[in-house]
Amino acid sequence: MVATHRRSVMTRGQGDAHDVTDVVSHIVADSHIASGTATVFIVGSTAAVTTIEFEPGAIADLNRLFEQIAPRDADYRHHLRWGDDNGSSHVRAALLGPSLTVPFADGKLLLGTWQQIILLELDTRPRKREIVIQVVGE
Amino acid sequence: MVATHRRSVMTRGQGDAHDVTDVVSHIVADSHIASGTATVFIVGSTAAVTTIEFEPGAIADLNRLFEQIAPRDADYRHHLRWGDDNGSSHVRAALLGPSLTVPFADGKLLLGTWQQIILLELDTRPRKREIVIQVVGE
Amino acid sequence: MVATHRRSVMTRGQGDAHDVTDVVSHIVADSHIASGTATVFIVGSTAAVTTIEFEPGAIADLNRLFEQIAPRDADYRHHLRWGDDNGSSHVRAALLGPSLTVPFADGKLLLGTWQQIILLELDTRPRKREIVIQVVGE
Repeated sequence: MVATHRRSVMTRGQGDAHDVTDVVSHIVADSHIASGTATVFIVGSTAAVTTIEFEPGAIADLNRLFEQIAPRDADYRHHLRWGDDNGSSHVRAALLGPSLTVPFADGKLLLGTWQQIILLELDTRPRKREIVIQVVGE
Repeated sequence: MVATHRRSVMTRGQGDAHDVTDVVSHIVADSHIASGTATVFIVGSTAAVTTIEFEPGAIADLNRLFEQIAPRDADYRHHLRWGDDNGSSHVRAALLGPSLTVPFADGKLLLGTWQQIILLELDTRPRKREIVIQVVGE
Repeated sequence: MVATHRRSVMTRGQGDAHDVTDVVSHIVADSHIASGTATVFIVGSTAAVTTIEFEPGAIADLNRLFEQIAPRDADYRHHLRWGDDNGSSHVRAALLGPSLTVPFADGKLLLGTWQQIILLELDTRPRKREIVIQVVGE
């Protein structure tokens, strides 16, 4: 069985993290699929999905790491193409990845207590984001 | 239902990116599986799969990031083992990851317009690569 | 069909890598599911899963890369919250990711010869880790 769900999230620009754990949990619980995988996928190439302990310090630390290895104000070849300013967004998003697959059993995600699913905005401006939650199981 | 497909890609060495979106799209469309997930997996430990806006600037930016954090000409312990020169390839590939899972519905991948699936060669020489596209759904 | 398996792994602290390929292979072989995907998921936010050639040099190289971009002894905002010392663990784990999905066919994982599935401990102390292996297929 497969259940496809979409959710929109309004973000506030680069580094803005959204905890979508509850959204995904409720979709799984309501799917009448007992066990399987929930794939959380961000549509677009300047945002990403991962897990982290969702507290402001850890989010700030992750953003600082990205600022070190892919500074927002550096020169990017991508800027030359479109006149964009979001080269840092593209490389950060490609590195972190758009997709996360989480197993569940008995209708519950098998996450750790301090492990949340986040959507991380990496674009340089606020965006309306769409995530797809694809539930596959039996 | 499950459909397993393999495709070969000839690459030109470190940093060579191949857009495999159409390949995956056609496999999904021809699978007679309406909705589910397509997992794109690279066989081998010196290449990786992710999504990015497939234009030369963004690809160059991603490769530059890798060159900064894992320079090709640095010393690697892995070189001591085999006399290889591809330590940078292994760490870049492990970081980016070999697997990408993309949801689809109504026979279509749920990607963004500017979001392509790429195979990124990270080895220091041209390779014949095999990717597996595993379609799971109903 | 879905089969959910859990395994515990005792780790020795930051940088300790465990090859779990055989564990996953045996679970897939014994599942009576011929083809599908095996998702390997680490429960918790300070460890990660990826593939790499499992030899000490490549593991050391990967750990060195993490030490460069997220040094263990740097200041992290996360430390201010809990008095923890594992800010480096959280950002490394978020970057590498908790989940890996590997296709299999005829009961065999479609990995390369030199491509192993690893659990990488990133916390600053030894941990008892739980991984979930979720097998989905037919």
